[in-house]
Amino acid sequence: MAGHIYIVGMGPGDKSMMTDEAYSAMEQADVIVGYTVYIDLVKELFPEKEFFTTPMRKEIERCRACYDFAIVGKNVAFICSGDAGVYGMAAPMYELLPEYANMNSEITENSISIIPGVTAAISGAAVLGSPINHDFCVISLSDLLTPWEVIERRLKAAIEGDFAIAIYNPSSHKRHDYLQKACDIMLSVGADEDRACGYVENIGREGCSGTVCTLKELRDTQVNMFTTVFIGSSRTKIINNKLVTPRGYKI
Amino acid sequence: MAGHIYIVGMGPGDKSMMTDEAYSAMEQADVIVGYTVYIDLVKELFPEKEFFTTPMRKEIERCRACYDFAIVGKNVAFICSGDAGVYGMAAPMYELLPEYANMNSEITENSISIIPGVTAAISGAAVLGSPINHDFCVISLSDLLTPWEVIERRLKAAIEGDFAIAIYNPSSHKRHDYLQKACDIMLSVGADEDRACGYVENIGREGCSGTVCTLKELRDTQVNMFTTVFIGSSRTKIINNKLVTPRGYKI
Repeated sequence: MAGHIYIVGMGPGDKSMMTDEAYSAMEQADVIVGYTVYIDLVKELFPEKEFFTTPMRKEIERCRACYDFAIVGKNVAFICSGDAGVYGMAAPMYELLPEYANMNSEITENSISIIPGVTAAISGAAVLGSPINHDFCVISLSDLLTPWEVIERRLKAAIEGDFAIAIYNPSSHKRHDYLQKACDIMLSVGADEDRACGYVENIGREGCSGTVCTLKELRDTQVNMFTTVFIGSSRTKIINNKLVTPRGYKI
Repeated sequence: MAGHIYIVGMGPGDKSMMTDEAYSAMEQADVIVGYTVYIDLVKELFPEKEFFTTPMRKEIERCRACYDFAIVGKNVAFICSGDAGVYGMAAPMYELLPEYANMNSEITENSISIIPGVTAAISGAAVLGSPINHDFCVISLSDLLTPWEVIERRLKAAIEGDFAIAIYNPSSHKRHDYLQKACDIMLSVGADEDRACGYVENIGREGCSGTVCTLKELRDTQVNMFTTVFIGSSRTKIINNKLVTPRGYKI
């Protein structure tokens, strides 16, 4: 009989920020599959477990390995940082499903369960205060898989809709100026230089730190790839050094 | 000495979808504060605990009670469904902070910790497949605290930016036609009638069920207030009855 595939959002990494069902899925799995860096985070929790890792850019090989393990009867926990379905591996797994379902009648949509987890927009917001306490957008600045024009269109729409914004992948070695470009786009469509913003490094890990600033200051800040950035809406305020987007209650 | 206030995102309700730190904050608190319905969900986990509840629309009284308990030295777990900082009580607590900090020098921003949890956009997405696996927006249709013009502007911007969208509070007794109005707005700015959509009822509870449909079908569906609705981006597909927004990998 084919095994089951749990696609597991493990949260920021620390066990205290995992859900019970995420932990149980890993505990019960015959093999844990994931990106090398995330596997290292869970190896100490399950030292006796079988692991399968692939490096960065080998995501589809990782997905195929999950189906291969399931077909030979193994239960799989396929781990993703944060949530499984926010820039995670849930979508490519479903995109590959028809191919494997055609190959083996025991593989169906019921072979897959998504275990949700705490994504960086949520865990990072908790460090800064409450920057996404009203309507918000999540936008990745990585143009590895998305044309830059699409990213630019979304940044503009997010400002035009006056959303609070959580920005993922704000920088990398090759894209050190992308956050600056993004800030310039938002300023060009009417975001104020004094807009309340903030960023969080190493969420849920050693060295976790949050900083609040203005949009103008953010534009001139060099962040690294382990940073999640927050742009306030026009109503976001800094209160006692915390970034706060009001829900609208009369206080 | 003043007590500490943990504002706790408890996830959809079931213990299996809480994080360890959410559970621990409740376990260690002297008093658990919350909306009556959520308190009922956790009472069976901590039968010996002191509880303080207020009904709907009494949110600010609930916040003030947390500060009052902290001032008399009690540690408080202030529980919110889903995440504490997504339409949750984190923001009003920070908005009230300067008043209480003025009153009592032991109350500072360090008196508050936000414990993030799994919000309905994430847990509902997991039921439907992977509808928010790329850039997305979260929009509430409740106009109790937000002018309808702001909601309309955000719905239009979300379509113009081609985001996937998670919709909270799509309906209530007094607002039974709001989802229909929202669909009409999205159709009016270019969303296709065949846009892939879906909705989830009773996430993480008994009777949890997900349905995929087109935007036209969604427009003519009567949902209840315990429903989270998902509108796909232009690239979202239905695969094996699952709602899937590709991340962009070559499959």
